[in-house]
Amino acid sequence: MAEKRRRVAVLGATGAVGQRLVGLLAGHPWFEIAALFASEQRDGLPYGDAAHWLLPDPPPPGVLRMPVQKPCPEGLEADLVFSALETGAASTLEPLFRDAGFTVVSNASAFRDDPEVPLVIPEVNAGHLALADRQRKRHGGCIVTNPNCSTIGLCLSLEPLRRAFGLRRVLVTTLQALSGAGHPGVPSLDALDNVLPSIAGEVEKLEREPLKIFGRLGASGVEPGDLTVGAQCNRVPVRDGHLLSVSVETERPATPGEAEAAFAAYESPLASRGLPSAPLRPVVLTGGAMRPQPALDREASGGMAVTVGQLRRCPVLGLRYVALVHNTLRGAAGGTLLIGELLAGRGGG
Amino acid sequence: MAEKRRRVAVLGATGAVGQRLVGLLAGHPWFEIAALFASEQRDGLPYGDAAHWLLPDPPPPGVLRMPVQKPCPEGLEADLVFSALETGAASTLEPLFRDAGFTVVSNASAFRDDPEVPLVIPEVNAGHLALADRQRKRHGGCIVTNPNCSTIGLCLSLEPLRRAFGLRRVLVTTLQALSGAGHPGVPSLDALDNVLPSIAGEVEKLEREPLKIFGRLGASGVEPGDLTVGAQCNRVPVRDGHLLSVSVETERPATPGEAEAAFAAYESPLASRGLPSAPLRPVVLTGGAMRPQPALDREASGGMAVTVGQLRRCPVLGLRYVALVHNTLRGAAGGTLLIGELLAGRGGG
Amino acid sequence: MAEKRRRVAVLGATGAVGQRLVGLLAGHPWFEIAALFASEQRDGLPYGDAAHWLLPDPPPPGVLRMPVQKPCPEGLEADLVFSALETGAASTLEPLFRDAGFTVVSNASAFRDDPEVPLVIPEVNAGHLALADRQRKRHGGCIVTNPNCSTIGLCLSLEPLRRAFGLRRVLVTTLQALSGAGHPGVPSLDALDNVLPSIAGEVEKLEREPLKIFGRLGASGVEPGDLTVGAQCNRVPVRDGHLLSVSVETERPATPGEAEAAFAAYESPLASRGLPSAPLRPVVLTGGAMRPQPALDREASGGMAVTVGQLRRCPVLGLRYVALVHNTLRGAAGGTLLIGELLAGRGGG
Amino acid sequence: MAEKRRRVAVLGATGAVGQRLVGLLAGHPWFEIAALFASEQRDGLPYGDAAHWLLPDPPPPGVLRMPVQKPCPEGLEADLVFSALETGAASTLEPLFRDAGFTVVSNASAFRDDPEVPLVIPEVNAGHLALADRQRKRHGGCIVTNPNCSTIGLCLSLEPLRRAFGLRRVLVTTLQALSGAGHPGVPSLDALDNVLPSIAGEVEKLEREPLKIFGRLGASGVEPGDLTVGAQCNRVPVRDGHLLSVSVETERPATPGEAEAAFAAYESPLASRGLPSAPLRPVVLTGGAMRPQPALDREASGGMAVTVGQLRRCPVLGLRYVALVHNTLRGAAGGTLLIGELLAGRGGG
Repeated sequence: MAEKRRRVAVLGATGAVGQRLVGLLAGHPWFEIAALFASEQRDGLPYGDAAHWLLPDPPPPGVLRMPVQKPCPEGLEADLVFSALETGAASTLEPLFRDAGFTVVSNASAFRDDPEVPLVIPEVNAGHLALADRQRKRHGGCIVTNPNCSTIGLCLSLEPLRRAFGLRRVLVTTLQALSGAGHPGVPSLDALDNVLPSIAGEVEKLEREPLKIFGRLGASGVEPGDLTVGAQCNRVPVRDGHLLSVSVETERPATPGEAEAAFAAYESPLASRGLPSAPLRPVVLTGGAMRPQPALDREASGGMAVTVGQLRRCPVLGLRYVALVHNTLRGAAGGTLLIGELLAGRGGG
Repeated sequence: MAEKRRRVAVLGATGAVGQRLVGLLAGHPWFEIAALFASEQRDGLPYGDAAHWLLPDPPPPGVLRMPVQKPCPEGLEADLVFSALETGAASTLEPLFRDAGFTVVSNASAFRDDPEVPLVIPEVNAGHLALADRQRKRHGGCIVTNPNCSTIGLCLSLEPLRRAFGLRRVLVTTLQALSGAGHPGVPSLDALDNVLPSIAGEVEKLEREPLKIFGRLGASGVEPGDLTVGAQCNRVPVRDGHLLSVSVETERPATPGEAEAAFAAYESPLASRGLPSAPLRPVVLTGGAMRPQPALDREASGGMAVTVGQLRRCPVLGLRYVALVHNTLRGAAGGTLLIGELLAGRGGG
Repeated sequence: MAEKRRRVAVLGATGAVGQRLVGLLAGHPWFEIAALFASEQRDGLPYGDAAHWLLPDPPPPGVLRMPVQKPCPEGLEADLVFSALETGAASTLEPLFRDAGFTVVSNASAFRDDPEVPLVIPEVNAGHLALADRQRKRHGGCIVTNPNCSTIGLCLSLEPLRRAFGLRRVLVTTLQALSGAGHPGVPSLDALDNVLPSIAGEVEKLEREPLKIFGRLGASGVEPGDLTVGAQCNRVPVRDGHLLSVSVETERPATPGEAEAAFAAYESPLASRGLPSAPLRPVVLTGGAMRPQPALDREASGGMAVTVGQLRRCPVLGLRYVALVHNTLRGAAGGTLLIGELLAGRGGG
Repeated sequence: MAEKRRRVAVLGATGAVGQRLVGLLAGHPWFEIAALFASEQRDGLPYGDAAHWLLPDPPPPGVLRMPVQKPCPEGLEADLVFSALETGAASTLEPLFRDAGFTVVSNASAFRDDPEVPLVIPEVNAGHLALADRQRKRHGGCIVTNPNCSTIGLCLSLEPLRRAFGLRRVLVTTLQALSGAGHPGVPSLDALDNVLPSIAGEVEKLEREPLKIFGRLGASGVEPGDLTVGAQCNRVPVRDGHLLSVSVETERPATPGEAEAAFAAYESPLASRGLPSAPLRPVVLTGGAMRPQPALDREASGGMAVTVGQLRRCPVLGLRYVALVHNTLRGAAGGTLLIGELLAGRGGG
């Protein structure tokens, strides 16, 4: 990695995911914040006033007085642009920055299904970043996307099984945290003493995104992986941390003991790259009788590791387990940042 | 039904399920409370002092001063004995009452797997009560059991599909309420901003009990139903109401539209019997985008109906839906009471 | 009360308080719903579609298909108009209906401080309704207001002490429920594992309204009561039920025992009037070590009674206690309805 | 401070407060853990197995395999003994260690009222530690106590006002977090959608302890401060962070503006001592409209600062404000540790 810090900009810097990103970037060893973009009506406000801060740790002092700007690529000097925009805004603003030559690493869903755009979990399909190079030739810049928060937890937790046994069919029920809906998000009267049994658009993402992530990169793009995913999504009264109840049919049948060995043997393929946010063990298997729990495990490895437990035989599909992913860290801001580090480490940022 | 009220006793009357039972019995048109049994150290205390009351409606005035007794069949004059005991106590006390000639209707799990003992959801397998008659011949009295709270929600919600299409494989993830663990039960520090990803013994009950309930009564007992159930169980910070995310493979494939028609066509086989606690529609299909929810739907038909929603195609097993059951009403006290009504209505109580 | 049912209309019928009112009116022995008013953009929608229903009991079947109308007094045939409007809408719409000759009983705060308008807790200051008669002479109709939800809990709980000993100074800290903010109201991320230490405008209402309620009606209006109230208001993660920690300095010093006797001796001055929603005991003193609690006591007397407990000596002001009021029943919809019953019972509705 | 690390032991190391202490000690620059004591039945277990871990950050790796011992002063080599015992155990074990010559810094309430024993908030009454020296002469060792968690929040937040204006009367209503009751502590069914309006023994501590802390040390012990405190205590569904609604009558009347200046001018008297856990600003005044909040402010200065907001005129006592203290950090483990640092810094540990 270069000695000089890379300059980065943040689109959607004042939202829930944007705040997490700003918090992570403020102390980052490789990056420095060049610009914070927010919606036009906040143009010029100091960041400390523009953001309705939601995190237990206070905003980094260095950004409190930094004025937020309306999103515009002109005059921007940055090596990377992180996007924490809502889908709607992302669909118009991200191409604007790409076409101006920037590399946009986005947490938004707007372009995840675009065949030109890689959908990346660095430990799983870093190779798909080759799509970004093809994009650059056509557009000057490129968009690289981070998957849906639950998708990341699902795919990372499946990855050791996929490598060892192959995947055929997956059924997942999610218990998703409130922070996934942002602020104001879910009204408290809908969350207290309650579960919401559906999340708009979430099933579709969970059923579709893993196919692209686990797909093979060919000459004409990503050929979807040959597995079937079925999902049901619930919103539970938890602040952070999506819990997934997963049942899996592997290509080659595996006992729980064999699966456990696969998890134990799994090592991060990023280990040698020295990326600051990459956990040494991105998938942590725990044997605790009551683990993983959001309150106890979501902060594992700074919120960047997925914790897996309750690994057992499933009488229907063969194997089952519970996985936990911190939805705004590994599942959003942290995952996006890690893609940025991967690009920067390749010299591509 | 006879004009004269049947006299009933309650074992475990002061616990969480016992309180619900006492509340339901207090205003019951068919039954009157003859005795309230509790653990020996409370012997003689007025019920109002013996029970640490947990329900929003106050204890029925009529029982406040009724002294609780230590459990003993001698001298008891009752037509039916309801049991809300813990498993341990149930395994010794229920046979004691049975052998003294009583009909014991139990919410405990101690004898659910006993081949002599029927495990009954009145709308699903009332015919299994024939086992009780065989028991009476051998023991003088009999034990009849109510299934696990989640099992009841699962089986009732599956019943319209079973009748219409047959069942082959079922995968269910539960989001279970805190009241299922009784009081003191789950510590608040384990429940607030958290989910517990496991409940001791629950998976086993959910995977085994439906086979007996959906089984066929033969000469030598119940022959288990030919279906496979896989389950994962979570405890969520909800007071009452177990939510189930269910995926089903039916014997004859069904589209969501056909399934919807099966739910719509399903009628309670108890309808003609006039049982006071039997809902006209024990399974209610709702089309709401965010239903069923514990906070809004658990009280449906006085907590005796199971609400089903989110009926869709499952890419893995064929169909999926969400079901909600009030775990201490239909899933425990109410379900037990309904069995008692069924027996009394048959003249068997 | 007349045999014929009085026709009533509801302004703001689809909001949180409006829903409670509609629920209470649907089965009311004296009233029948003549019209349901909601904001213009819902004009013509059936009530079942127009209201985002928030209550555990489903909407009354009788109103599901009743079309909501945009608020307009022309052509309305009604004996009483209940208003569950927001302050802003109330300030323009309520005078419109009053000037058209209607008696408007309002839960809104818009006119509570108006010297022409009575601010009434039926058990405390029914005499202030004389102001309504004066209003009618000037405007054709009249507006009568229900106090703030916390004010009602505070004043009702103070009333037995005021009668027995007089009041001089009161300090109250409130722990208010989420439903007080309506829907969507408080975002869940602000409510989960949290307390909000302030509620906009609430302190002012709690410090000012009791003076008018406890005031004496004179020729020129209500002369404020001679007491001082200080308040701090918190929002806690509770669905319904405002809890108040109260310290009181009475005019004539009283021991906790004397205060207890005053609570015990207090009887509803409405007892002889037979108002359907008036509790026999509007203030219930409980000796329980951990009472009152929102989860256990908010439904007392159908949510119309205030429960008082923890009565002790206060080393600073003399006496202290905890009071609980159901904020959307007695504190809002139920309190408003009770005023309507009082007026109807007087022949004034 | 000496270059060599001081050896410290922890009594009650596996409980809720003990875990916090162990967590803080594990990375402490001055101290190293010499012994972890727990109840006899865990004797010899590795700490990782003996403690039912409750904190979001995992137990420090260095202590996971350290065997816990049954509490016994013989053979112990330690400069300081921290006690996180329950009151009952503290009343027998702490004198045992003191009489064996150890300096015991205790979070337990057993000896807080003992005239020989100092009750210390380092920023407020460090001078009271002279009592410890007197104790040592009589007993060989000494006991020094940390106040109740709410007392610490109250006294620290009052201290700037006391210095500037003197204190006469204080009324406080607490909204206390669940962790204050330990684990299993409050049952979840008592905490969800609820507030408990009383906490056993808490009012007494809050009304009595400030008098000793604010007292003057004389020849015969601490002469109680000349102020009156009245308290009401509630348990709210919050994990960590006690919120206090406070009204104060100062000796010399002060406007909110003058009070604000007093808070702004207040500096830590420990500033020059370089104690590792002492915050630069132990009392932080915030002007935010909705602050302090447990979820946003409890971690201020590593949980060691008290945050004050909502400073206003109180119509009854003169001033009012809201204060927030992290109950298991500054209010328990952190406060106890800070006393240990103060003693070690004085050369007394």
